[in-house]
Amino acid sequence: MNTAPADPASLLARLADIVGPAHVLTGDDVRSRAVGWADHGPCQALAIVRPASTGEVSQVLAACHDAGQPVVPFGGLTGLVRGAVAGAYEIALSLERMQRIEAVDPVGRTMTVEAGVPLQRIQEVAEQNGLLYPVDFGARGSAHIGGSVATNAGGNGVIRYGMTRDSVLGLEAVLADGTIIPALNQMLKNNAAYDVKQLFIGTEGTLGVVTRLVLRLRELPRGNQAALVACPTFGDVTRLLKHMDSALGGALSAFELMWNGFYRLVTTPPARGTPPLSQEHEYYVLVESSGGDPARDQAQFEDAVGAALEAGIVVDAVICTSEAQRESLWALRDDVEGIFRSGMPVAFDVSLPLAAMEGYVAEVVGRLEREWPAYRRFVFGHLGDGNLHIIATGPPDAAARHGIERCVYEPLAARGGSVSAEHGIGREKLPWLPLCRSPAELALMRKLKQALDPKGILNPGRVLPD
Amino acid sequence: MNTAPADPASLLARLADIVGPAHVLTGDDVRSRAVGWADHGPCQALAIVRPASTGEVSQVLAACHDAGQPVVPFGGLTGLVRGAVAGAYEIALSLERMQRIEAVDPVGRTMTVEAGVPLQRIQEVAEQNGLLYPVDFGARGSAHIGGSVATNAGGNGVIRYGMTRDSVLGLEAVLADGTIIPALNQMLKNNAAYDVKQLFIGTEGTLGVVTRLVLRLRELPRGNQAALVACPTFGDVTRLLKHMDSALGGALSAFELMWNGFYRLVTTPPARGTPPLSQEHEYYVLVESSGGDPARDQAQFEDAVGAALEAGIVVDAVICTSEAQRESLWALRDDVEGIFRSGMPVAFDVSLPLAAMEGYVAEVVGRLEREWPAYRRFVFGHLGDGNLHIIATGPPDAAARHGIERCVYEPLAARGGSVSAEHGIGREKLPWLPLCRSPAELALMRKLKQALDPKGILNPGRVLPD
Repeated sequence: MNTAPADPASLLARLADIVGPAHVLTGDDVRSRAVGWADHGPCQALAIVRPASTGEVSQVLAACHDAGQPVVPFGGLTGLVRGAVAGAYEIALSLERMQRIEAVDPVGRTMTVEAGVPLQRIQEVAEQNGLLYPVDFGARGSAHIGGSVATNAGGNGVIRYGMTRDSVLGLEAVLADGTIIPALNQMLKNNAAYDVKQLFIGTEGTLGVVTRLVLRLRELPRGNQAALVACPTFGDVTRLLKHMDSALGGALSAFELMWNGFYRLVTTPPARGTPPLSQEHEYYVLVESSGGDPARDQAQFEDAVGAALEAGIVVDAVICTSEAQRESLWALRDDVEGIFRSGMPVAFDVSLPLAAMEGYVAEVVGRLEREWPAYRRFVFGHLGDGNLHIIATGPPDAAARHGIERCVYEPLAARGGSVSAEHGIGREKLPWLPLCRSPAELALMRKLKQALDPKGILNPGRVLPD
Repeated sequence: MNTAPADPASLLARLADIVGPAHVLTGDDVRSRAVGWADHGPCQALAIVRPASTGEVSQVLAACHDAGQPVVPFGGLTGLVRGAVAGAYEIALSLERMQRIEAVDPVGRTMTVEAGVPLQRIQEVAEQNGLLYPVDFGARGSAHIGGSVATNAGGNGVIRYGMTRDSVLGLEAVLADGTIIPALNQMLKNNAAYDVKQLFIGTEGTLGVVTRLVLRLRELPRGNQAALVACPTFGDVTRLLKHMDSALGGALSAFELMWNGFYRLVTTPPARGTPPLSQEHEYYVLVESSGGDPARDQAQFEDAVGAALEAGIVVDAVICTSEAQRESLWALRDDVEGIFRSGMPVAFDVSLPLAAMEGYVAEVVGRLEREWPAYRRFVFGHLGDGNLHIIATGPPDAAARHGIERCVYEPLAARGGSVSAEHGIGREKLPWLPLCRSPAELALMRKLKQALDPKGILNPGRVLPD
């Protein structure tokens, strides 16, 4: 869709005037960079431009807008949907030089940062102030906070603290034409007309480039409790979720479900883990709470698990008595390496109503067994959020990949599910978007895009079907 | 701004064809209705049109759009910013016939409803299912859920459960031209392209009419704990907030601050309440938690208050040991009648960063004392949310009202505060909006308005300055 710019040399010279020649990378300086975390091969962008400030971002975008030049915002390139894979006619706008932590307000419990700060640094600075930035996921060391906001990242803490959207109080963004939108609200409550920051959260850089953020911090929990439990039926799993959520007040912080096949994989050699519970159960749940009074919280947690055992919704359980034990349970849950050992992985991140989940998994697994018997299937997820990860592995084969995608995505439509729970759409999932969004919704999205980026220079070909 | 429609009779006939003649009210049937809860006098609308379904809402809007006819969506008319005060050339679109509760999903913990259902009915149906719809405020019996979403209502539970925005998973809305947007998501996680429902939350009916909702429900707490405590300084109040939030894990559910003057008023005859604590302290906080294990929660709550006493950030406290006691504390906090007895009230609903609040209140009170000495001042608020209510009372006088507004609003600008924390903008606060929103933000809002309602028929003259 993109075509070669009319006069790239003149545009690049103009950009060099704005950010300095050292910060307009071309040729080998671009090619020596990887295209991204989930993709292989060198970066193909026409240039990588590295502004040092919001003012420079604004000038760079204004110049590209004048030239009709497509621009791809670069964060930490840890996305999973190929949204930041730049083409040969695209300019990458990298925020890697915008890494300042501008302010921490321990009273208001906020942190004001530039968009290029890595997630992990934000978590660390929060903790140094006795506070918590609650969004967390595996790519924390590389992911930029700006990218995590642009993609409304999820992760392990959503059941307690919500998605990234729920941790953003305010932001500054730059529109395609260079207009700076300073929506740096710091309060939990602000109903002064439209909440314009919502336009830039989860829209994957297609409506503007996020340059600064006011993040909401929480009190750091004083302790954690965790258990691995086994449930005989899916109904028991959903009953357990309600029971634990109710019994623990507001303290439930994780509810991770593993189907039998996944549990066997991560507790059988060559996996590093040994099975804390026998491998014979249908469902395994890693349940966790975090609170303000560790001794009482532990007793309350044990009582809640005990009540679930008595009621028969849990048939076996191991309750952690040390941090090391808790970490070893999470290591099981996170040991997806074993899956990748068994061939080309096709990974999914879907969500659907809990009440429909058991039937959905049965249908998907049944279809995969019939249509793609050479592929193994693993199912696990953040059940508390309705978020399911399904991974199929087997011989590399593009047709198989597409066929497997059909098996997983098509049964979502009738159940009100989503083809992307937390990873976004990017390029990867674009063909499947119409399965879960109506034509009227898609038309409304295009209307927004047209209003904010009429020339379509921001992340073209991503997120929205043509 | 509105002018008389070219041919009202023909438009009303067309609307009668859509909704039935009995549901196009005119003349005395309109005039016999009140203009709203906070305003006096009869409704002035050209007509009140009462569709029975989303399809009819769509047809009504399409007809009005064709005719360039201004439309004011009517919910329960309990708003506080004159947003739904309809003019003589405006048609009121009332959702009072759309009162169906369509589904309750106890597993996914959602409720799907039409927009005209009163808030209280939703709370009751949730409770009948062992669940909680956590948004709550005084007008619950009359307020429509659709209106509460359109205004992103706050209330007493925000510190624990967030604003209304945080309890809306999906919605259906109708655009100005009649297009139906079916964004009825049911999941906590859904990153499949733009989250278009955000456009209709808190935009006060200016971008579309909310017709149906998927609400997020929570587990019903099994018990509450409450205390009234006295703090010597504002710094102690903010330290107490952090301390209680941290010590109670996720269970803190209210943190309501009363300044000395407010506390004296509600604990001195003719007020009904007697002072549970002496009237000599600077600050009084009603603090509350709700959790899953009442006996343990009570012990934890008492320990947390005890630790605050020991640390000296609290100097006196009464901890409730019964539900009746807890209710009597809330009755104090909610006894604003006494304020209204002392003359024309000018009431404010502002928010600002906690760190700036003490200086702000000192400045506002100082200005009011100097400039409007005949007016009494009362200050209280949902401190946990940065939300302050200030009420000045005295002789009715339009110039005084405007002057008092200046005293309260102007000092917000330099502190990053908001002229509306939870009530919205409507008509009432429109002149003050530019104090807390930049020209770039306002221009972006207008761009959205232009994209979604190019003829400007939805709630004209509200929310956005011309």
